[in-house]
Amino acid sequence: MTASFDRLWNELEPLGREASTGGYRRYAFNAAELECREWFTSTAQARGLEVETDRNGNLWAWWIPAGVSPELPALVVGSHLDSVPDGGAFDGPLGVVSSFAAIDALRETGAVPTRPVVLAAFADEEGARFGVACAGSRLMTGQLDPDKARALVGRDGPTMAEAMSAAGHDPRGLGADPERVARIGEFIELHIEQGRGLVEGEAAVGVAESIWPHGRYRFTFRGVADHAGSTRMSDRHDPMLAYARTALIAAESARSSGSRATFGRLEVEPNGTNAIPSEVRAWLDARACDETTLDALVEAVHAGALEGSRENGTDVDVTTESVTAILTFDASLRDRVRAAVDADQRVETPVLPTAAGHDAGILAGAGVPTAMLFVRNPTGISHSPNETAEADDCHAGVSALTAVMRAML
Amino acid sequence: MTASFDRLWNELEPLGREASTGGYRRYAFNAAELECREWFTSTAQARGLEVETDRNGNLWAWWIPAGVSPELPALVVGSHLDSVPDGGAFDGPLGVVSSFAAIDALRETGAVPTRPVVLAAFADEEGARFGVACAGSRLMTGQLDPDKARALVGRDGPTMAEAMSAAGHDPRGLGADPERVARIGEFIELHIEQGRGLVEGEAAVGVAESIWPHGRYRFTFRGVADHAGSTRMSDRHDPMLAYARTALIAAESARSSGSRATFGRLEVEPNGTNAIPSEVRAWLDARACDETTLDALVEAVHAGALEGSRENGTDVDVTTESVTAILTFDASLRDRVRAAVDADQRVETPVLPTAAGHDAGILAGAGVPTAMLFVRNPTGISHSPNETAEADDCHAGVSALTAVMRAML
Repeated sequence: MTASFDRLWNELEPLGREASTGGYRRYAFNAAELECREWFTSTAQARGLEVETDRNGNLWAWWIPAGVSPELPALVVGSHLDSVPDGGAFDGPLGVVSSFAAIDALRETGAVPTRPVVLAAFADEEGARFGVACAGSRLMTGQLDPDKARALVGRDGPTMAEAMSAAGHDPRGLGADPERVARIGEFIELHIEQGRGLVEGEAAVGVAESIWPHGRYRFTFRGVADHAGSTRMSDRHDPMLAYARTALIAAESARSSGSRATFGRLEVEPNGTNAIPSEVRAWLDARACDETTLDALVEAVHAGALEGSRENGTDVDVTTESVTAILTFDASLRDRVRAAVDADQRVETPVLPTAAGHDAGILAGAGVPTAMLFVRNPTGISHSPNETAEADDCHAGVSALTAVMRAML
Repeated sequence: MTASFDRLWNELEPLGREASTGGYRRYAFNAAELECREWFTSTAQARGLEVETDRNGNLWAWWIPAGVSPELPALVVGSHLDSVPDGGAFDGPLGVVSSFAAIDALRETGAVPTRPVVLAAFADEEGARFGVACAGSRLMTGQLDPDKARALVGRDGPTMAEAMSAAGHDPRGLGADPERVARIGEFIELHIEQGRGLVEGEAAVGVAESIWPHGRYRFTFRGVADHAGSTRMSDRHDPMLAYARTALIAAESARSSGSRATFGRLEVEPNGTNAIPSEVRAWLDARACDETTLDALVEAVHAGALEGSRENGTDVDVTTESVTAILTFDASLRDRVRAAVDADQRVETPVLPTAAGHDAGILAGAGVPTAMLFVRNPTGISHSPNETAEADDCHAGVSALTAVMRAML
């Protein structure tokens, strides 16, 4: 099992790695991502799995033992192969490689499933090219309009329809695929933890409880453009200072409530060195363990923005761009998964929320019983070339996933 | 005098005003600025003044009474006609219109100069199109290399050489013009105050003491890109927070030292809503009454950036982009000018520093005896469509300038 994981990992890891940054730019249907798809296909075929690409570009590798009806609800494992810009090696691929290694481990011990097992690699999970996260699973479950998807313009120019066509997929087929969704009995996604929730305990593997509610808000601070040299500090209406105050209050509020608040995107007008800005637009990404906490966090940041505006003689408008409700994974499946991991790992398995979106969340939202395993991330870093996991923890993840699958065959 | 000012002001004010913003976009040699030049030429010619455009695009309107040798050191008055993007009506044009009105006032009373009087409108004072402030006066005094100037690329595409050619000026003539500089006896520039230094007193008109020293510094805050959702606040290395802390410390330091500190320009990498930034680049514009105070201000901001970086686990580099030393105007000319304004205005004339650059500063730096008059700005706002001055104060400015010229004829 360890050898199988290591071999597969070493095959996949170099594909599409950027020498300049050490990160990955595996975007939906680009050259690097197509190399990963070829690796998926040849790896599955070498194991006698039947590979297909569905209408929405998702990859499926079927293991249907002789005598098993393909009509039975399938046990689906897997994750995704694409990355964010200069992302790390583990986010997505760890789940795919671990699933192959778990299938190898089951077979090594002679396990024969009594229903179909399928390894899925969902398309365009990160949304790095076309801007919509989990596009493949959203399309499949009818949560993304196919006309809208086809028309999405990639950061490199072509639309999703054009990029799919260039990669040999017919974009006319995009859209809800209820028959395929109906074939999924359960979906188990193994993923590197994005954060340090497992660092302080003994367990290398955790089980997901929920996906935190998540909101995006645009704060527009409006002041008065003026001369950076001749305008006395007391005469200014500087939206940059109102924003700076708000950013610090947001971080402080998130710290004190155990939540997350990030101002990662900013637009400044006129953005000149010698000009007091007329306007600063800042986007808040806010996440919390539950909706009450999220609401309180956003309210605190809003109050901070009003205070910062009052202090600096500016105005502020807040626009909600999106709010995603909390998603709680199926409790009975979670308990079954946890029991199998407990027995395999011989420690009490932590049950953790995640603050990141996943295909597992999309499928759960569509009514599919879904569970997630998280593998310990020693630095907590994700979406970065510095993302990493210890080999021992990866092997523990394969072992846990194998145990879960064995319990569900 | 009042009627002359009002009439000229009403002629010039509508030229190149943008309906959408109420501001001006009179950039060197663009259509709006050429309209202003035509107005200058016809206004001067209607008064029998001889108009010429010099090698560097500056306009000159000569009043040389019969019998006066053109070789005598000329008394130069004037300012500029161009604007910043969406600038106000007064910054520049107030000095040009007031100079015409002062010449009209002198003539109405039968004054005849014993030496040449010339009204100058310097080209491209704001540098809004080609990025170099006071380009016309810098070129004339040999403070801007003509090859460099010709190659400057305008925000709308063409180079300065191309834009000059299109406007009918030969760019091959650009460069130092020592004979012309040698003809200037003194330069008196009237300008709207940029700031509120005159608001609280009785005087509508002040006299410049100095131009503050001025520095521009690039602060590069480096952190670690990470996931905005899943990264705990305590695990972050967020350069945005280090920057926000620094911006607030800069404003506080400037307030407490009576200086100016502005962060008006920012670049964020990767600038995504769901990404903790890897890097924030922020430009500090810092000005103070003297160099010791400026150094202490910049040191305080730097210390704040180090503190903000320590708190947030980031690094910071500071690069000095430019430092301009303090410029003190000729003291004996300033005293003569002030005595004339005192007598005319019947109040004690404030002597004020300015924190903005001016053509008067460029000429003073080239050894020309130079003085400036400031007209009260009730809001202090400049470089904005909201820039304004009271009609009575504008008239007081014309009266004061007339008195100064009369004392120097």
